[in-house]
Amino acid sequence: MVPDAIKKFIAVFEKLPSIGPRQAMRLAFRLIQGGRASIEEISSSVANLKNVKVCPRCFFVYEGADPMCALCADATRQHDIFMIIEKETDLMTIERTGKYRGLYCVIGDLVRSGVLEPWQKMRLGVLKKIIEELPEKKAGEIIIALNPTTYGDLTASLIVKELKDSAQTISRLGRGIPTGGEIEFADDETLSHSLQRRG
Amino acid sequence: MVPDAIKKFIAVFEKLPSIGPRQAMRLAFRLIQGGRASIEEISSSVANLKNVKVCPRCFFVYEGADPMCALCADATRQHDIFMIIEKETDLMTIERTGKYRGLYCVIGDLVRSGVLEPWQKMRLGVLKKIIEELPEKKAGEIIIALNPTTYGDLTASLIVKELKDSAQTISRLGRGIPTGGEIEFADDETLSHSLQRRG
Repeated sequence: MVPDAIKKFIAVFEKLPSIGPRQAMRLAFRLIQGGRASIEEISSSVANLKNVKVCPRCFFVYEGADPMCALCADATRQHDIFMIIEKETDLMTIERTGKYRGLYCVIGDLVRSGVLEPWQKMRLGVLKKIIEELPEKKAGEIIIALNPTTYGDLTASLIVKELKDSAQTISRLGRGIPTGGEIEFADDETLSHSLQRRG
Repeated sequence: MVPDAIKKFIAVFEKLPSIGPRQAMRLAFRLIQGGRASIEEISSSVANLKNVKVCPRCFFVYEGADPMCALCADATRQHDIFMIIEKETDLMTIERTGKYRGLYCVIGDLVRSGVLEPWQKMRLGVLKKIIEELPEKKAGEIIIALNPTTYGDLTASLIVKELKDSAQTISRLGRGIPTGGEIEFADDETLSHSLQRRG
């Protein structure tokens, strides 16, 4: 009873992150009711993502003919400090603070099992190679900016093992009570960290 | 810093039902990491929705060269009984029971304010015209199968007003305790209905 085009649409969209079969179906009906022009607009907004490149150095996204992204190519940034982050959106959030002037390595979504995927090891390999090409052959600092969760902590310890010879210092983001947060609701570990790092 | 193609993608996708700007952004990054072939597949699965038609009689979707959908064209169904439903997915759920052999009218998403949109009035107008073309010029029954919520009830009463001369009977779906439900957690109105309609 359901047209093939809708079945195909659902099969493709239900595999995407946080879209299930029900939402995919509702989306299909909404798009059809929206009409041909809106379907065309959405379809081409997807197709245009083919023009987006992934930087071969930091694995963030960029557009244009350059061999690397604008962050990696920016000579005013510190080229011996690297921040390892999970998601592109994390990078954007860090950049918004304007407080970090080093480079990045986007490691990609952590898997639940707490191991590094082959392509994540490959990305760390690229980072190592970039560091080896520095005049000092060592990074001044590598900041592991993964979420302070069980999986983040587990993965961070794997990355430390992998990169321990590549940097003078390997650090993680400071933990403590977030601005606007309440001491009453902070967990013990957060409170311990915020006591240790008081100042 | 974010490529234009991603900005455009987010602008288009964040307007879709239950997709916000954050999910749209995450979706964009996931698609890019997925590579060109998967982007192509998704883009064409959207574009192919252009082949889906909306039935000019019941406003359900269909494919192919016929002037109406297979349900409306099915001579074995009862052509003087109509069910008014909100969503295409509701129609599919009803059809799955195999217990209904009449025709449909998809009225479309109810708006919160509890009024009928102009295009919803148009759909009721089409239904009225179909009924006037019946030999009896009146439907045997119109079943208003809207969700038993405040907005559903409000809209149902508007529809009754609109169609009161078009049918011998106008009914709504029976209310009561759902299979697997518990009396303890049923609200008063549901319980009252299930007492009245006991049997």
